[in-house]
Amino acid sequence: AAEMAMENYKQFLFFLATSLSVGFVAVVFVLRWVLYFRGGLAWDGDQAEFNWHPVLTVTGFIFIQGIAIVVYRLPWTWKCSKLMMKFIHAGLNTLAFIIAIISLVAVFDFHNTKNIPNMYSLHSWVGLAAVILYALQLLLGLCIYLVPITPVSIRAAFMPIHVFSGLFIFASVIAAALMGITEKLIFSLNNPKYSSSPPEAIFVNVLGLLLLLYGALILWIATRSPWKRPSEQSAPARLTNGGGCKSDREGLTMSDSVAEVRNEPDPSSEARRRNPNQDEAGQRSTM
Amino acid sequence: AAEMAMENYKQFLFFLATSLSVGFVAVVFVLRWVLYFRGGLAWDGDQAEFNWHPVLTVTGFIFIQGIAIVVYRLPWTWKCSKLMMKFIHAGLNTLAFIIAIISLVAVFDFHNTKNIPNMYSLHSWVGLAAVILYALQLLLGLCIYLVPITPVSIRAAFMPIHVFSGLFIFASVIAAALMGITEKLIFSLNNPKYSSSPPEAIFVNVLGLLLLLYGALILWIATRSPWKRPSEQSAPARLTNGGGCKSDREGLTMSDSVAEVRNEPDPSSEARRRNPNQDEAGQRSTM
Repeated sequence: AAEMAMENYKQFLFFLATSLSVGFVAVVFVLRWVLYFRGGLAWDGDQAEFNWHPVLTVTGFIFIQGIAIVVYRLPWTWKCSKLMMKFIHAGLNTLAFIIAIISLVAVFDFHNTKNIPNMYSLHSWVGLAAVILYALQLLLGLCIYLVPITPVSIRAAFMPIHVFSGLFIFASVIAAALMGITEKLIFSLNNPKYSSSPPEAIFVNVLGLLLLLYGALILWIATRSPWKRPSEQSAPARLTNGGGCKSDREGLTMSDSVAEVRNEPDPSSEARRRNPNQDEAGQRSTM
Repeated sequence: AAEMAMENYKQFLFFLATSLSVGFVAVVFVLRWVLYFRGGLAWDGDQAEFNWHPVLTVTGFIFIQGIAIVVYRLPWTWKCSKLMMKFIHAGLNTLAFIIAIISLVAVFDFHNTKNIPNMYSLHSWVGLAAVILYALQLLLGLCIYLVPITPVSIRAAFMPIHVFSGLFIFASVIAAALMGITEKLIFSLNNPKYSSSPPEAIFVNVLGLLLLLYGALILWIATRSPWKRPSEQSAPARLTNGGGCKSDREGLTMSDSVAEVRNEPDPSSEARRRNPNQDEAGQRSTM
């Protein structure tokens, strides 16, 4: 179970490479949008400050969050300790969260200097709800999966909720971005209008499709069970060396040593050992 | 495995009742929107014809599609033949598709009589893409799961794609609806404007949140593995009577007789029997 069949591995690499490429092209598109069509980036209370809002959302809250979601699935990390991977997952999500907050500050600051009301649109409601749920998700994730004293039973019971919420929040952020694109094109295209399909309209609609495609690819990778990180139980590398990456035994990181000292069990495999028929707990990150 | 634990069953009923209630309230909201705020319904090439677009989308393409997605999960249908459930699943999806087409006709007809361009917005791109993918999904689903000669190996191999596409299209329709709400409120609210949050703006924003919540609940129900319909293998009711609903042996329907004559195998359980380690095929509708 620890080794992925070659065919499977190639398919995984194809989807991973495609998703990262699509996400990267989306970042390039949002940069070209604001730099070429919308007057660039600045922190001046004006349009160029607003422009940080789409740039930071697409880069941080969508692209980086997507990477954070699939990080456990990278087969070359399966020989690394689970705890280290948790730190990477939590770190990338924290980075995405900080960027999302700066993105919010940009748009609130722009609205306030321009006397535009805040929080009236469905875009703003869904977007702010997503940021709040993301903060809650981060906090609960840290308490349940990184605080060492949390009982294994709680970790296992909460896992399906953690996975579902994560994917749902990610999808909601993309939905909010699509509404944001819709609003911005209607408000800022005047002569010619959005409805006469000037080059900017077509270009930014394509950005919307890229975001949707990136979402589809990340969700596909995150929900294929053959691409799951093997449970600790069935990963001999983990059992024999107790932590760290197999190929790098000299450079034990702090997190590895912590894992070794505490002998931290994998919540889901532990639960399965105790209760082999607990379907829900056995699902881990496949929903 | 054929019997659901009582706790599990109660949880399922709670989520099912909540999702149906939220979906129903969303239908009531969209009706109140067009009837009370937007001048009612008619087929006159004018605003009242446009109003069929949101009403039919929310009712058919979202609410009915959601029910079609979770229909295999209703425990009281597990004693019915799989083929009959497939007909119900396909029938509800076909109904949703027909309603989606009428919904499209309403908006194209409205645009054409008003000389408003078609297909310029991201809403229209995502919405039309969802309708086309939904048609493809229906067609492929019929050919693969209802044409009796399709090999079991193809049925099993295609199942994860069928399930993922179905859920992704459903989510995309909701995203398109949220963009549609955004557009419509910006275009139709003028005095007072959307940004001054008149009652209609708040009311329709809430409709958007209801659609998002309905999506979350349906996706949650559709991806919980303990709520999966048991495979034919482990359902003694199915094996002993060969089809139909256990409690209604007198009234065999056409589909039941077809199932009995053809002795149709369940694609996933069949695949598992042949290849018990084929994780992907064993997933069925849990992704």
